[in-house]
Amino acid sequence: LATSASPTRQSLKIGLIPGDGIGVEVIPAAKAAIVALGSDIPKPDFVDLDAGFECFTRTGVALPEETVRVLEEECDCAIFGAVSSPTRRVVGYSSPIVGLRKRLDLYANVRPVTSVAADPNEKPDVDLVVVRENTECLYVKQEELKHTENGKEARATRLITERASRRIGQMAFDIALGRPRKHLTVIHKSNVLSVTDGLFRETVREVPTLPEVNGKYNDVQVAEQIVDSAVYRLFREPQIYDVMVAPNLYGDILSDAAAALVGSLGLVPSVNAGDKFIMGEPVHGSAPDILGLDIANPLASIRSAALMLRFLGYVKGADRIDRAVDEVIREGTVLTPDLGGKGKTSEVVEAVLKKI
Amino acid sequence: LATSASPTRQSLKIGLIPGDGIGVEVIPAAKAAIVALGSDIPKPDFVDLDAGFECFTRTGVALPEETVRVLEEECDCAIFGAVSSPTRRVVGYSSPIVGLRKRLDLYANVRPVTSVAADPNEKPDVDLVVVRENTECLYVKQEELKHTENGKEARATRLITERASRRIGQMAFDIALGRPRKHLTVIHKSNVLSVTDGLFRETVREVPTLPEVNGKYNDVQVAEQIVDSAVYRLFREPQIYDVMVAPNLYGDILSDAAAALVGSLGLVPSVNAGDKFIMGEPVHGSAPDILGLDIANPLASIRSAALMLRFLGYVKGADRIDRAVDEVIREGTVLTPDLGGKGKTSEVVEAVLKKI
Ligand SMILES: CC(C)[C@H](C(=O)O)[C@@H](O)C(=O)O
Ligand SMILES: CC(C)[C@H](C(=O)O)[C@@H](O)C(=O)O
Repeated sequence: LATSASPTRQSLKIGLIPGDGIGVEVIPAAKAAIVALGSDIPKPDFVDLDAGFECFTRTGVALPEETVRVLEEECDCAIFGAVSSPTRRVVGYSSPIVGLRKRLDLYANVRPVTSVAADPNEKPDVDLVVVRENTECLYVKQEELKHTENGKEARATRLITERASRRIGQMAFDIALGRPRKHLTVIHKSNVLSVTDGLFRETVREVPTLPEVNGKYNDVQVAEQIVDSAVYRLFREPQIYDVMVAPNLYGDILSDAAAALVGSLGLVPSVNAGDKFIMGEPVHGSAPDILGLDIANPLASIRSAALMLRFLGYVKGADRIDRAVDEVIREGTVLTPDLGGKGKTSEVVEAVLKKI
Repeated sequence: LATSASPTRQSLKIGLIPGDGIGVEVIPAAKAAIVALGSDIPKPDFVDLDAGFECFTRTGVALPEETVRVLEEECDCAIFGAVSSPTRRVVGYSSPIVGLRKRLDLYANVRPVTSVAADPNEKPDVDLVVVRENTECLYVKQEELKHTENGKEARATRLITERASRRIGQMAFDIALGRPRKHLTVIHKSNVLSVTDGLFRETVREVPTLPEVNGKYNDVQVAEQIVDSAVYRLFREPQIYDVMVAPNLYGDILSDAAAALVGSLGLVPSVNAGDKFIMGEPVHGSAPDILGLDIANPLASIRSAALMLRFLGYVKGADRIDRAVDEVIREGTVLTPDLGGKGKTSEVVEAVLKKI
């Protein structure tokens, strides 16, 4: 997709943050896939890091400072598993993944959603990338509660800045430029949110005209869609989309919606990308209902490792992992139940490792 | 669905607000279906009312005061067509449909999404109702723009009140109670928006325990889903849903998503319902690309007329219209292009009228 660093390292320090639920079951799969690459990447050096709701219950903190410090000071990159959400409001708890994105300024959440064609030479039916702004919108979590005569009133702030819209726009144009179709759809709801989404839309659309861009994006074709209609059309005609760029919450919803098109959330990887750090993360959640059954789909996590490596510039390693995953899906003999198979997590991991 | 008034009127004054684009083509279809009911409803008396982007361009006002006055003082109910959104920010323009919902306090947007089974005795694959809060969330349109050292910063307020959450909750429980499955899913994102969506979720969940409710909702089974995962599951297993209740923006997106499951947005009706007024509205937009071709699907608009009559208590009339629409869909010989047919708007209307 994009190359944000060149591979000059002797070793690659990788933070592993399994988090909650099946995060614990799929992160080892990502690790194993990276190890299997051997000398195609610098020698990986893994460090296990704590975070999550379970961590909060145990220690009173969902995102320990030590985790942030190790990531910032020692790691080249990281892979995050999943977090469980408390089933009711818990004082002092705040989502650690939202926190990490902000603390490490991982301003882009890049989520490629691609189906695997039966024939490797055929075009996939669905082949799109959701580029989600990852630091603002309603995720700034500025909320307040008032008690009034008419009962409780809660307010949240939705923040959209020119700066964040511009950098996510640039990332989206870069990604579009690197793909055969070079098509970008800007997602917004400026028919209602004329100021905030108006700013997002205008700022993204103006990216190609920035002086420093210097005509670089001239070949990228730009379209736009209002978010509700974008979701509708995503289901009806997914092939109209190549790269979609969206404010945080719309991107969250759109990427789950797109995942439904390719068979399972258990297949969809992402990276949280900043200018200095890359963190892979499967798009699925912690799925406590299937925890411990050895049936969690490890492919999203394995693909997230590949995507992370791709962003770091290790394209050959990333390609090897992605090809192995595609073959396992294509063969269809060892798949987890979310894909209609009877395979165990461990068996799927083994099948992928053999092909790497 | 629900009965909010009993039919004691001598005549029924109905405001018709076609708005923009194909609104102008489909509102006459709704009118014709109502007229065709003859003595099953009080004598309808129609009044044409102005609103929309075209109205704004012509008069400088998107929602004329006279339209609001006639609706409030003279009409029993109304049907709204669609509005076009300006393609760039236009000073002074504000969406008239959002304005109407607020001015008339139409606090619930009820959107039944139902597929038509091939055999009239079979259960439809998709049979759900989105109950969308219609007055607050980001739709309060409190936005501000600041110019800072780092460029522009825009903020919008997302308002969730206990009062609005309670009344939409009650409406949703009432609707669930009237359906065979009696199942309600509360949609929220309280893992991020713990205060605002926390308030929505708790207030709705507490509705059955209100003293005045008096055990009325004991048979309703309540579940909940986080909005991103709700959209994912909507596509994967729509049959898990019966009634969904959601804050405004999630409801907007969910209802478009659900529409994708039943073949076309051109089939999905809604009512904007308050305690004193009911306004039907097809869920589709103004579709300027197909304007004037006589191929707009009139069925969403016709079904919106039926839904409006149902909410007013004219169940027999509503049933006659709905049955006629179902038969036309089932026969499949006269359908507009959005449903894969070659029919004209006018031909579909004629086919429905014959069956009423
Ligand atoms: C767990 C939750 C906070 C998170 C989000 O909303 O970003 C998740 O849905 C995701 O998409 O990564
Ligand atoms: C036109 C627009 C303001 C409106 C909305 O967002 O409510 C539409 O999408 C709808 O669903 O009725």
